Formats: sequence, structure tokens, C-alpha cells
Amino acid sequence: MAVYTEVSDDDLEAFLEDFDLGELLSFKGIAEGVENSNYVVIAARGTYILTLYEKRVKAEDLPFFLGLMEHLAARGVACPTPIRARDGGVLRTLCGRPAALTSFLSGVWPRRILPNHCQAVGRALATMHKAGSDYALKRPNALSLAGWRPLFDACRARADEVMPGLAAELETELKALEQAWPKDMPAGVIHADLFPDNVFFHGETLSGLIDFYFACNDFLAYDLAVCLNAWCFEPDNSFNVTKARLMISAYRRERPLDTVEVAALPILARGSALRFLLTRLYDWLNQVDGALVKPKDPLEYVRKLRFHRGARDASAYGAD
Amino acid sequence: MAVYTEVSDDDLEAFLEDFDLGELLSFKGIAEGVENSNYVVIAARGTYILTLYEKRVKAEDLPFFLGLMEHLAARGVACPTPIRARDGGVLRTLCGRPAALTSFLSGVWPRRILPNHCQAVGRALATMHKAGSDYALKRPNALSLAGWRPLFDACRARADEVMPGLAAELETELKALEQAWPKDMPAGVIHADLFPDNVFFHGETLSGLIDFYFACNDFLAYDLAVCLNAWCFEPDNSFNVTKARLMISAYRRERPLDTVEVAALPILARGSALRFLLTRLYDWLNQVDGALVKPKDPLEYVRKLRFHRGARDASAYGAD
Repeated sequence: MAVYTEVSDDDLEAFLEDFDLGELLSFKGIAEGVENSNYVVIAARGTYILTLYEKRVKAEDLPFFLGLMEHLAARGVACPTPIRARDGGVLRTLCGRPAALTSFLSGVWPRRILPNHCQAVGRALATMHKAGSDYALKRPNALSLAGWRPLFDACRARADEVMPGLAAELETELKALEQAWPKDMPAGVIHADLFPDNVFFHGETLSGLIDFYFACNDFLAYDLAVCLNAWCFEPDNSFNVTKARLMISAYRRERPLDTVEVAALPILARGSALRFLLTRLYDWLNQVDGALVKPKDPLEYVRKLRFHRGARDASAYGAD
Repeated sequence: MAVYTEVSDDDLEAFLEDFDLGELLSFKGIAEGVENSNYVVIAARGTYILTLYEKRVKAEDLPFFLGLMEHLAARGVACPTPIRARDGGVLRTLCGRPAALTSFLSGVWPRRILPNHCQAVGRALATMHKAGSDYALKRPNALSLAGWRPLFDACRARADEVMPGLAAELETELKALEQAWPKDMPAGVIHADLFPDNVFFHGETLSGLIDFYFACNDFLAYDLAVCLNAWCFEPDNSFNVTKARLMISAYRRERPLDTVEVAALPILARGSALRFLLTRLYDWLNQVDGALVKPKDPLEYVRKLRFHRGARDASAYGAD
């Protein structure tokens, strides 16, 4: 929740001159998104989001992300669409950072998750997976199995500061996942970060998905496992199997899961829990003085990970 | 630049049910304003700002602030207008905080100040002073002369941590102001915080004033002195007398200054510089761990204060 880069009048004016938006009516930094600086731009022709990509997003990945949004939007997925400048391009530079203008998506992200939200997310995720199946560009998932070990190595020495025994628990978990991680399963473009603040609703009707800046190629069912972690635990960290059942069955109505995918759900859920645990742990141990964003609690994901470790099979998620 | 209070879906829904805005289309926290939490609310009937008043704003002052905005808007001053709920009230409670919904003001606040901006601000300030002259409620200025001594006492012991010799310089300045502060001058409702981020423009045309949460009753010329400090120094802290001349003369065309007011400008500018110096110093010395807002540099106002101390008379500001 931050704006990292202040955009000067002259820079903004020069940037907007490349587009055909009409008179600028309003320009406000928004307190959402952890990685980038986002502004709402209201102009005579409409409302837009201006994103300045800060250091965590690699410039060379932006054609993949922006191209994906355009690809998905063209196939009916409600998501921000990059706005083309007069020269036809979508990726610009502003204040020394890569920047892009996208359409504004209406809706409100849910602070309290209802079962119907989970059902809608399951359906939207499968729809997105199908719409992404013919996307030409590829981007490997840097935060899947191969990425966890280096992240753990960077945290190992100080992990027990967060919780005694954490380093050992993570080492055991990582070894188990390295043994058991699936090698072959239906794969494609995944969102990889479909948390509640990235899904907009009008009431209980899903109005769109945002923030494709972790999107990559990986097992499609892994994306579902991310959503189980992000949507189906209650604030007290208990697992709500009703929400999971609704999410998975809605997903399967749009895109059937094969038996290998269903059987892999517990291990994929463990992997996805470990992924968020490790990045949160890293951020927790490497807090920057004066940072504008409070790091998220890594221990939430220790509890989630333990839940998944106790899951005998996919029936723990209401899937059969 | 922060959102201090996260509003839950249920709380937001219950709050908005008291109003007649139509379907909620978007709800985004905005990264502006230091004291309160602000959200842009887009609904079927229009766009609004929802403000939750955090602890620095006293609840008992809110009727003064909200009533003033309504009073000024009714007299043609472009400023946010409180939206009346179905029961006719404007002040509500949300998430345990006082909260109000106001109209959305278009325009962009200038990051780089041009002479024309200063002229427009001078005119708008005088217009606001005239429009406020028949406002019934009163609110003393807690951050004028009588408030500076206690604020200084709270900072004195550690002031030299910020700059060696600062405590002594402030003591001398405060004594001088206590001696020389005007006792009788044209007074009325002042904005008291009309910094660039509180003034919106379309290009170089002023489109409105926001953030009346320091408004109070005080000398009208003191408000002009605040604007001299806020608008007429360059980023290198040099004083731009062209901007000051434009601001003051535009003010005088709307509301003539009497000779006492003109003669008092240097002392009022010193007082206003001291006021911002002291609150910034206090915030600097009392930084909260994990705060979402970086405190502003108090030393900027030491330099401004010294400039005003060197001003022989109002001609230093281009006024005669």
C-alpha cells in the first residue's frame, strides 16, 4: 500500500501526450499494490490506472505481462487492458521507470471472504487458464520448486528468530517437496498470485482480475492450490472446506481436472504455502528502514503449511 | 500518504446504505493526506471521497470543518461538499471512527509550482476569506502563538539532535514573536494549511481547495503568510519574490489588505514558519515505529524562518 514514485507535472504531461485521453481531470496515487506505484488517472475519455514498475518487477518481463492482459481481455477475461499509445506501443518510461497505462476495472475486492466469492474465483481461474492456453509468450515460474532452495538459503541462518525450530521445519519440508514435486501435469499460463485484493466484485458477482505481475507458466493446478491458500482459510487460520469444495467444483465445471491433478492437490498446496512462507520470511528478515509497506506475517503460512501436510488426499479440500 | 483504517465490506455496505448513491462500483484507498484515511468511492450516481478521521482530528471539531465546507461551497468556493445521508446528517461513524462522505473534486495538485499557480492561490484565498466571513461557527487556532510555547517545550530537550543550536534559536524566535505578535487585525475563518497538495488545478486554472481540517479563526493575513511559506520558496529554499508579488497582488484585488496587515507580513510569515517548524520537529523527534508516513524535514523551515527574519518590511515579499 504505497506510492514509491512521485510523478512530476512535466513528466506526467509528457507521458500523457503520447496517448489520446483528452483533458486530464484527476491524478491520485492509490494505496494498493505492494510492488509497484499505482495512480488513478481520470481524463475526458475515461478512467485509467497508471502503473510505474518498481525494482521488484523486471523490465524484460513486462512484455509478457502486458501482452498477457491484452490476450486475456481479447478472449473475454475481465482484466485491465493495456492502453496503446499513439505509436501503438504499451510500454513506456516515466520517471526513469517502465510504466504502462491500463483500463480501469470497476469492482471492490472483498475484505471478508464469503463462500460465493470462492466459487466465483474457481470459475474465473479456470476461464483464465483456458483463455491463456494459446498465449504465445512464455515465462518460467521463478518462485516454484527450483526457486525455493535459494530463497531458503538466504533466510536459513535467521529463520529461528521468527519462530524457534523454523529453519529445521523448512529444511524438512523443502526436502520432502523436492522428492515429491510432480514432474508432468497439465501446464499453461497461471496467475500465481490470485489473492483477494486481486479480485474485484460487484456484490458477490466477480467483475475482474488484476495484478498479473507474477503470471508465468506452470502447472495449472498449482494456481488452484495458491487460491486454496489465499481464499479458503478463515482469519483464525482454520480451513473452510466448504469454500474449498465450492472453489474446486466451480473450477472443474469450466476446466475438468484429471486424476493426476486432483491427487496432487495436497502437495501443490504445500508447495504454494511454502512459496508464500519463504517470500514473507525473506521480507520479514530484510525489512527496510522507513519502508512504506509493513511486511506480512510469515507464521500465517507455517500454519497453513502444517494443515496441508496433514491432508491425506484431495478429500481434505472437498475434492474427490 | 496512507490508509490507516481498512474498511470491511460489511461496514462499508452499512455505511453506504445510509446514502443514496446507487450501486457501488469502486472503492480504493488513496495515497494522499497525512492525517486521515481517504478512499475514492465510485458509485452509480457519482464519484466521492470517503474520509475516516484518525486520532489527530478531534471529533468535536468536525461539525466546524464539515459545516465550513458546506458554507463555502454554497457561496461558490470550489471545495468538497459534504454529502447528506438520508437522515440529513453528514457526520457518521465507520470502523469506530468519525467519517464523512464528500463530493469528489477534479483537478491535479501541482508538483512544480509556477508563478501562475501562486497568483491563482492568492485570488482563491481571498475569495475563501470573503465567503467565510458570515460563517457562524468558531474554532480558535490551536497552532497559533499560544500553542507554540507548549509545542516547543515538548521538543526543547532534543531539538539540538536535529541541528546544533536549534533549541536556542527557537527560544529566541519564540520570545521575539511573543513580544511582537499583532493583537488586533482583520480576522475570520482561515484555511491555515493551504499547501500545494491541497489545491487542485486543471493546467494553470485553479479547480478547487481541499483539506479544511486545520481551518480555524485567526488573522486573515496569517493565512496569506502560510501560503507565502508553502508556495513561494523554490526547492533549494530560495525565495521567489515574483511568485510572492503575484500571490499578494491577486489576493489584494479580491480583498484589499489594510496597512496594518501589510506591515505585519514579515512577522506573520515568521510565525507561520515557526508553526510548521515546530510541528515538523515534534513529529521528527516522535517518529512511530512502522509509521506509514515519513516525517517531513523540519530544517526546511529553519531556512524559511531565517529568510523572514531578514525581511525588513513587506517589500521583501513584493508588497508595498
